[in-house]
Amino acid sequence: MGPIVVIPPTSPNALSSVWDNSRRPDDDQLLPVRRRRIGAVHAENIARHPGARLRAIVDVDPAAAERLASRHGSEVGTQASVLAARSIQAVVIASSTSTHADLVEAAARAGKAVFCEKPLDLDRRRAAACLAVVAECGVPLMVGFNRRFDPHFARLERQLRDGRIGRIELLSITSRDPSPPPLAYVRVSGGLFRDMMIHDFDMARWLLDEEPVEVFAAASVLIDPAIGVAGDVDTSVVTLRTGSGALCQISNSRRAAYGYDQRIEILGSKGALRADNVALSTVAFAGADGIISDKPLPFFLERFAEAYRLELDHFIDALTRGTPPLPGGSDGVKALALADAALQSLQTRRAIAL
Amino acid sequence: MGPIVVIPPTSPNALSSVWDNSRRPDDDQLLPVRRRRIGAVHAENIARHPGARLRAIVDVDPAAAERLASRHGSEVGTQASVLAARSIQAVVIASSTSTHADLVEAAARAGKAVFCEKPLDLDRRRAAACLAVVAECGVPLMVGFNRRFDPHFARLERQLRDGRIGRIELLSITSRDPSPPPLAYVRVSGGLFRDMMIHDFDMARWLLDEEPVEVFAAASVLIDPAIGVAGDVDTSVVTLRTGSGALCQISNSRRAAYGYDQRIEILGSKGALRADNVALSTVAFAGADGIISDKPLPFFLERFAEAYRLELDHFIDALTRGTPPLPGGSDGVKALALADAALQSLQTRRAIAL
Amino acid sequence: MGPIVVIPPTSPNALSSVWDNSRRPDDDQLLPVRRRRIGAVHAENIARHPGARLRAIVDVDPAAAERLASRHGSEVGTQASVLAARSIQAVVIASSTSTHADLVEAAARAGKAVFCEKPLDLDRRRAAACLAVVAECGVPLMVGFNRRFDPHFARLERQLRDGRIGRIELLSITSRDPSPPPLAYVRVSGGLFRDMMIHDFDMARWLLDEEPVEVFAAASVLIDPAIGVAGDVDTSVVTLRTGSGALCQISNSRRAAYGYDQRIEILGSKGALRADNVALSTVAFAGADGIISDKPLPFFLERFAEAYRLELDHFIDALTRGTPPLPGGSDGVKALALADAALQSLQTRRAIAL
Amino acid sequence: MGPIVVIPPTSPNALSSVWDNSRRPDDDQLLPVRRRRIGAVHAENIARHPGARLRAIVDVDPAAAERLASRHGSEVGTQASVLAARSIQAVVIASSTSTHADLVEAAARAGKAVFCEKPLDLDRRRAAACLAVVAECGVPLMVGFNRRFDPHFARLERQLRDGRIGRIELLSITSRDPSPPPLAYVRVSGGLFRDMMIHDFDMARWLLDEEPVEVFAAASVLIDPAIGVAGDVDTSVVTLRTGSGALCQISNSRRAAYGYDQRIEILGSKGALRADNVALSTVAFAGADGIISDKPLPFFLERFAEAYRLELDHFIDALTRGTPPLPGGSDGVKALALADAALQSLQTRRAIAL
Repeated sequence: MGPIVVIPPTSPNALSSVWDNSRRPDDDQLLPVRRRRIGAVHAENIARHPGARLRAIVDVDPAAAERLASRHGSEVGTQASVLAARSIQAVVIASSTSTHADLVEAAARAGKAVFCEKPLDLDRRRAAACLAVVAECGVPLMVGFNRRFDPHFARLERQLRDGRIGRIELLSITSRDPSPPPLAYVRVSGGLFRDMMIHDFDMARWLLDEEPVEVFAAASVLIDPAIGVAGDVDTSVVTLRTGSGALCQISNSRRAAYGYDQRIEILGSKGALRADNVALSTVAFAGADGIISDKPLPFFLERFAEAYRLELDHFIDALTRGTPPLPGGSDGVKALALADAALQSLQTRRAIAL
Repeated sequence: MGPIVVIPPTSPNALSSVWDNSRRPDDDQLLPVRRRRIGAVHAENIARHPGARLRAIVDVDPAAAERLASRHGSEVGTQASVLAARSIQAVVIASSTSTHADLVEAAARAGKAVFCEKPLDLDRRRAAACLAVVAECGVPLMVGFNRRFDPHFARLERQLRDGRIGRIELLSITSRDPSPPPLAYVRVSGGLFRDMMIHDFDMARWLLDEEPVEVFAAASVLIDPAIGVAGDVDTSVVTLRTGSGALCQISNSRRAAYGYDQRIEILGSKGALRADNVALSTVAFAGADGIISDKPLPFFLERFAEAYRLELDHFIDALTRGTPPLPGGSDGVKALALADAALQSLQTRRAIAL
Repeated sequence: MGPIVVIPPTSPNALSSVWDNSRRPDDDQLLPVRRRRIGAVHAENIARHPGARLRAIVDVDPAAAERLASRHGSEVGTQASVLAARSIQAVVIASSTSTHADLVEAAARAGKAVFCEKPLDLDRRRAAACLAVVAECGVPLMVGFNRRFDPHFARLERQLRDGRIGRIELLSITSRDPSPPPLAYVRVSGGLFRDMMIHDFDMARWLLDEEPVEVFAAASVLIDPAIGVAGDVDTSVVTLRTGSGALCQISNSRRAAYGYDQRIEILGSKGALRADNVALSTVAFAGADGIISDKPLPFFLERFAEAYRLELDHFIDALTRGTPPLPGGSDGVKALALADAALQSLQTRRAIAL
Repeated sequence: MGPIVVIPPTSPNALSSVWDNSRRPDDDQLLPVRRRRIGAVHAENIARHPGARLRAIVDVDPAAAERLASRHGSEVGTQASVLAARSIQAVVIASSTSTHADLVEAAARAGKAVFCEKPLDLDRRRAAACLAVVAECGVPLMVGFNRRFDPHFARLERQLRDGRIGRIELLSITSRDPSPPPLAYVRVSGGLFRDMMIHDFDMARWLLDEEPVEVFAAASVLIDPAIGVAGDVDTSVVTLRTGSGALCQISNSRRAAYGYDQRIEILGSKGALRADNVALSTVAFAGADGIISDKPLPFFLERFAEAYRLELDHFIDALTRGTPPLPGGSDGVKALALADAALQSLQTRRAIAL
């Protein structure tokens, strides 16, 4: 396939500083992933892919663009130059959320295939309008719900589809961050449901293989009152029910003292499947206080490093083969619809029918 | 303390035949608990207790009463003879649910201390009326929420109270039976919330150490349509919220192919605690298909054998010391109130405020 | 079957005080087994067995005998009175090692079936002479290698015999005490091979189902130089090889900071089986320092409580059915032969052929 | 630092075909490592390292050299051209064992730093002679004992050095291949001790941090009689003892039905440390037959992928800083000495003093 551009990948954002806080010096030896932003992760995965070429980096910060471009032997471009270049086939959008929809539309109108980090937009109508433009332009669009590509979750899903546990009855998704993001980020994040649980809504849709017809949410501010003052919650549980009656529990917290907690468990008619956390190492110490084993990998860049690589693989392979990459734009909008319904349920103390 | 009577312990009921089905021949060597009903379990625990004497067995089936009495060197009595005997200090009521309230009242009026299997009654008002009689008579009453006495759950609770994880934020209770009870039992059980999840409501109240102020329930009939025809559900998830904002998720299913699944997990401000299932053994096999370890203990008589012993210990100790045994009658009524609210939520698709 | 006598069970010996040291106050709630000596354990297991009757207790300390007898409603006897009583069918010998052989012979000559704690004697020739007397008298003799009756090890062995891993290639036995016994005990124990590893030699013979033909031992004094001064070692690894070429590694230490460590692992042509330690509970704490799970059960009285019960069940059942109880006297002598060979190997730095 | 050459990396050898056999189609999605030989692994790790440049590939098979060179944008060279090129600073030798010593000497004489796959030579005197040449030339030499760089084992070692378990008393190393290599490979391998257990001898020396003073070996042919006919064994246990009395058990098998088994366990005066296998995923299935979790990663290219990367990192960093890379030539010779002593012990049935 043709060259890919990463646009604009390197603006230091709030989220990456959260992640930095979760690292401890002695973890470094175990963790090959260095401190970097998600755009840089995508850039490296493209650069290493034998079937792709990283053509240009676009960034509002020229120095950052230069550093990243020089590391991978690619150019620094501008939005205009990149969209005008006929040899550029695809763009990867990893900028801040508020710019996603505009950039997706611009890239689509320039005939580029698009990979866009989630969410398309915090406003579901804006996201839907953006999808309409993409449809009109007829370009492929993939949304960065990276967790579908995590090897552990993907293995779980494959066994599920292979019928190992029969029909799904109960799905439990546990998703907890090591520590809350800065308040500045909280204020622009769209709230826990659209910013954090949206990943779990996508996982639920993917695993249930059926649309939820009802959403109920309960939530609290338990970690930091300032999060409440900012209009958000930090701890939440949500219940989904599908048309066939399958039930799903989601549990989110912005803080887990033991690190990034990402687990899935499914009860089916013939048994259960679970995907547990990935530990820092298999080393355990046995002493007078018990058996102490290692914590989960600290945060998303470590836990989902392989998922980030595999989702770009899929994007590139799909473009190469001419098949639609998944998850696509409508998956992004449907997850957003669940987030909106959860918020509405939280406000009305009712289950919301979809 | 004085002698105790078990009244009537041995009627073969539906539940015990469920349990029988869950046994496989090759499990027998590992499982010291033989096939028996809960009344017989209590009788043996009393007979073995150095501080108690099993005085009499009362049963509608005289032959069953005779067998059990002769095994423990105790007498066969009648309800009238036992309540009239001034030397009998306490009765243990393990009969079918519909007889609980009447028997508790009769025993209370005869001045006996009472241990009664849960629930006091399926009707909350009847249960409350029964408690009023007990209060009037001034006798101690303990309700058989045995799980509080499970050594694993008790250890979890102790560490929680000791502040190991700080303040509770999220409680998750997973509770699944190996297979659904017979329909005949389903029809008289009072429904999943009052019959099965009532244990989890009690665990939630005990662990949260605070009353829930809101209940939401979702449920389905996924295992057997006949359960739905009987007016019940077989799969359910419930959300509780307390006044301080702590959240609780309960997950119930009447069927788990891998056996009796009883787990608790608590996220707090300083970490998390969990109590996992107790496996049949620590033996594992490693082969071409993976590492295969043993399933959980098959059902409640095995999983909670120690809990049954320890709850009677507590009852006897409390009577001996003159302190009130716990959980008491009001715990029974409060758990019932949560079950009723869950049912109301299921019908209205709203969160029910308490 | 007829009554059984426990003779003399209750002399406080060094080993039980070791075990006392291993207990911590906060473990008590989880551990139903109270502080007691092995003779008292056997007495209680006999008293509770529906097919046996505990007739008398014989002890050099009359007060101790009286306490134990009164707890179980049995008599206090003397060695002479018990051996003379024709109604007494069997004796359980749990006295100090140096008295075993004499007591076994006396009981055998009185026509009693005998259960004797291991070892029969520290001197293999004395043990063999004792067996000759038993054979001449034609009475059943069982030796207390209790670990064969541990439900976990027994399940391992059953799966092995059922062919789950094919032919045995490598057996690994790990056996570590929480802390070394008092020096007074070390001096009379017969040394680590005869006192401690003898259990592992018996397990090896039982699991390999074939006699070792070669023994090699390496050992050190690493825990306490005084153990070396007393002529013993505190840390040892032994290699066994059978006629068919199966290999076995045994690892013993008198001290493990995390408690009593009893594990077995077997590699076979079709896979591997292992039996892991039994933990105090399934509770785990996840915090900033890792995931902390509970230690193994503290020492043998807790870890092998069920094994003690089941070995007496087997003894009683065998007597009832008229079949020979196992392990028998020759198992005791063969394990002792392996211990002697290990000691010889340690001194000569050669493998010893058997 | 200057460019590095990989010389000759790509001859298809027996070992890699073994590894191929261990792969199952459905594992592929989880395993990022593609089918390739160790030289190609090193080439890729050098090519990706920001501080190194992969200058040339030398291979007896020109087509293979061309393929690998073109993948990484490097040249195809000859032994002569590479050694003559003054701009080439280092060579990585991953050819067949019989060529190692000659190539190391040639490279040393040309003034190149050398990384050589283990072993230097199957003959300890030849290896020692080679080291003498290296010493004379004054070039750095690193031997490819990759396991020291495995993140799990490295974490274990760091905690050990930090004193977490006090003084080492017992070290247990379990090392089992999924299936035996082809007989053609067995015949030229130098035997199990020099070919396979040599890794464990190096791990033992590294972890014990002290030289063994005694070696004892037992071994059998249990998997394939043809291995015995070829003069080798397939199953072996070895005991080491150090000057301070620390003991070590090594267990090797050429076949484990459940895959590549690489575990280490250390008992110390204050506790124990263990590094367990790395599983294919964290997914587990719970069903009627038990809880089935995933097997270990299939073989060394997967299990030690990170170790291969990190050992080259270390080599490059050491050259850059001008410090000696470790493990060095003498580590290679000392591990070989232990292998030779094990073989001698196997033949004499004695412990061999070193």
